[in-house]
Amino acid sequence: MTIIELIERKRDGGGLTGEEIRWIITEYTAGSIPDYQMSALLMAIFLRGFNERELAVWTEAMMHSGDVLDFSHLPTAKVDKHSTGGVGDKVSIPLAPIVAACGLVVPMMSGRGLGHTGGTLDKLESIPGFRARLDPDEFGQILERHGMVLAGQSETLVPADRLIYALRDATGTVPSIPLISSSIMSKKLAEDLDGLVLDVKVGKGAFMKHEAGARKLAETMVGIGAAHRTRVVAILTDMSQPLGTTVGNALEIHESLDVLAGNGPPDTTEIVYKLGAEMLLLGNLAQTEREARHMMRDAVDSGAAMERFSAVIEAQGGDPAALIDRSLLPAARDTRELRAPRAGFITRCDALDIGTAAVRLGAGRATKEDDVDPGVGIIVHHKVGAEVEGGEPLATVHYNDEQTLENALGLLQDAWEVAPTPPPPPSLLIGEVR
Amino acid sequence: MTIIELIERKRDGGGLTGEEIRWIITEYTAGSIPDYQMSALLMAIFLRGFNERELAVWTEAMMHSGDVLDFSHLPTAKVDKHSTGGVGDKVSIPLAPIVAACGLVVPMMSGRGLGHTGGTLDKLESIPGFRARLDPDEFGQILERHGMVLAGQSETLVPADRLIYALRDATGTVPSIPLISSSIMSKKLAEDLDGLVLDVKVGKGAFMKHEAGARKLAETMVGIGAAHRTRVVAILTDMSQPLGTTVGNALEIHESLDVLAGNGPPDTTEIVYKLGAEMLLLGNLAQTEREARHMMRDAVDSGAAMERFSAVIEAQGGDPAALIDRSLLPAARDTRELRAPRAGFITRCDALDIGTAAVRLGAGRATKEDDVDPGVGIIVHHKVGAEVEGGEPLATVHYNDEQTLENALGLLQDAWEVAPTPPPPPSLLIGEVR
Repeated sequence: MTIIELIERKRDGGGLTGEEIRWIITEYTAGSIPDYQMSALLMAIFLRGFNERELAVWTEAMMHSGDVLDFSHLPTAKVDKHSTGGVGDKVSIPLAPIVAACGLVVPMMSGRGLGHTGGTLDKLESIPGFRARLDPDEFGQILERHGMVLAGQSETLVPADRLIYALRDATGTVPSIPLISSSIMSKKLAEDLDGLVLDVKVGKGAFMKHEAGARKLAETMVGIGAAHRTRVVAILTDMSQPLGTTVGNALEIHESLDVLAGNGPPDTTEIVYKLGAEMLLLGNLAQTEREARHMMRDAVDSGAAMERFSAVIEAQGGDPAALIDRSLLPAARDTRELRAPRAGFITRCDALDIGTAAVRLGAGRATKEDDVDPGVGIIVHHKVGAEVEGGEPLATVHYNDEQTLENALGLLQDAWEVAPTPPPPPSLLIGEVR
Repeated sequence: MTIIELIERKRDGGGLTGEEIRWIITEYTAGSIPDYQMSALLMAIFLRGFNERELAVWTEAMMHSGDVLDFSHLPTAKVDKHSTGGVGDKVSIPLAPIVAACGLVVPMMSGRGLGHTGGTLDKLESIPGFRARLDPDEFGQILERHGMVLAGQSETLVPADRLIYALRDATGTVPSIPLISSSIMSKKLAEDLDGLVLDVKVGKGAFMKHEAGARKLAETMVGIGAAHRTRVVAILTDMSQPLGTTVGNALEIHESLDVLAGNGPPDTTEIVYKLGAEMLLLGNLAQTEREARHMMRDAVDSGAAMERFSAVIEAQGGDPAALIDRSLLPAARDTRELRAPRAGFITRCDALDIGTAAVRLGAGRATKEDDVDPGVGIIVHHKVGAEVEGGEPLATVHYNDEQTLENALGLLQDAWEVAPTPPPPPSLLIGEVR
């Protein structure tokens, strides 16, 4: 067996055996297959695809390229949630403590922002002192004590994915459903989960612009879960406009705290409850969605969810006082209002433009090496369907630098559309795949 | 413009502009585009193809990646011939001196054997002292003085092809018609030719197993020639069985000398005359094929062709005495006859098996770094259509080592098929593309 033969077979549309796939992942991770052969194979996979069997084996092989966590000694179900990424998507931050307070174990590993979408870790790091990088022992201890942890991917987990993702990023092989699915699922399955809820975003601000593609991606990941005998549910949610009212790191912590306090914006709150209910159902802590939502509401109303969040932030080095006295969170020096050019109904509030504007302000990264500015961002006052007066503020831009403000405003001017007649009501929950 | 954007465009079936293609070839040759990005692009080209315009620009860009020869000061037409490679294909060796003796200028650059096909340079190097590696000045001087030269590709000519070919060889992207065509044509066009005759081999022992693929390859190369305003003619010839009666380096020099002396085997002689006539027509030294064949026959009968060959061999360091006293050519220590298992008609004489057996004897290379054994090889006594007695010799194997003999015989046993009824007569000339 040589890698050239395997490249040729995939190039011609043939299938790879389980043994061959395991060999490829092992040898590439060990550095024995050079990048130039792997990138040719990845392009062949991009263009020829994988069948279900190949995809399941590829994902398992990636998963086993490094450590695999073992939380079998924990008495409760371990359930995680993963989002394919969007603008203003701070859902993980309130969701984890709410479902942990309901009794689930949530070993949540998150990522950083790249491109126009933000990253959970960047948002959490705007809390003074918070550390996203935990060693495996710390990770396990915090998880055992608090039933949740909010950390970055461990270096020793799924090293094959880190290598392959970097190569895909440099060789035009990122947007492939099998390669995306296996990348996500290998990392999640390595967390030793009993269940996984996927939030697959659809729309202008998401990786998948249309429902059909999002559904295919969701079905593929649910299929991988089934092949691995892990229960996976995917919820398709709208990302044509930003989620909630804030885009930017510290600003999204404010909104997350609002959700934990029971007074978050309706759309963010609804996504948190919908995904949380699915997690509690997968973990067998509730029998119906109604019961699950009731448990979550209790965890919020009793303050248990907020307490849980505070304890975990403290355990990971963050200052819990900043969750109460929010003036301790970073803030931008200046603000500027963006106003409605005329009276009417908002028919568009563009997630991609607003996400890109936030990056221009410094809230995100242009390259992996950039630092983020925690205080800057955009508060969104009105979204699709709202009726506004001419001159009424549509958004407040939080900025630290005039030049970045100008760059952001250039995009934001066109992000909203105000028309004389109301649009059809947008739907937040688009579909689900089980 | 980034290479990633160009990879993505080709991946999705889009076209690359002339400027983009020139940039890719320049930057890759300069080492500024890494192998792992080029191999992903090559796989995308393999699977998505090139349109005619892209292929012409890609070929020109390759051609201009290094030196381009200039023989415009020579008074006569410069015409070369290129074969896509086969078993027993020694045609270049007698062809060049015959057409040079007719007045053409033939700046022939040849290659080495790899896989089951032999290489002209390996064959010539079995002549004691012969040097295939010439510096550009020597190349020009020999060409000017003798009207021909038989050399390897200069290091400074088309460096992009050397780099890209090595990468394709390692990444499963060799058998692509646009990539093969541009590789061949960039090197030939860099020779500053007035005309080019292509010998496109078809059959089991050739790269193209079937006529349709060979015709497509021929049409593509003729099209590149047209875009470059160079007259190119492609002749499709049979490679289901070896050409002539010898396979192996020194053995093929014997047969080449026979053709130059006017007593070569009919099939080799016919291919030499057919391709030579096309070369003389392209060079406007003859007006009809009949006239061209007449000129060539005269050059052979008068001894002018043999004299020309002898002079060039001497100019390139070879011992011209070995062309007269053939005992000075290398020879294997032992021979073994392969006999017909029964009486009947030969219905198969497999070029691939016989070529592979010759490699096992040491006549070819398993890897680029291997040396060839000049004396070993196979003399083929009977080919398709011949009637044989049971026990009559089909071939004589020339070998130096018992183990290599056994390995070769393992293949040769099955290379011939003897049946009770005669097969349809095989055709040597299969078609042509102008």
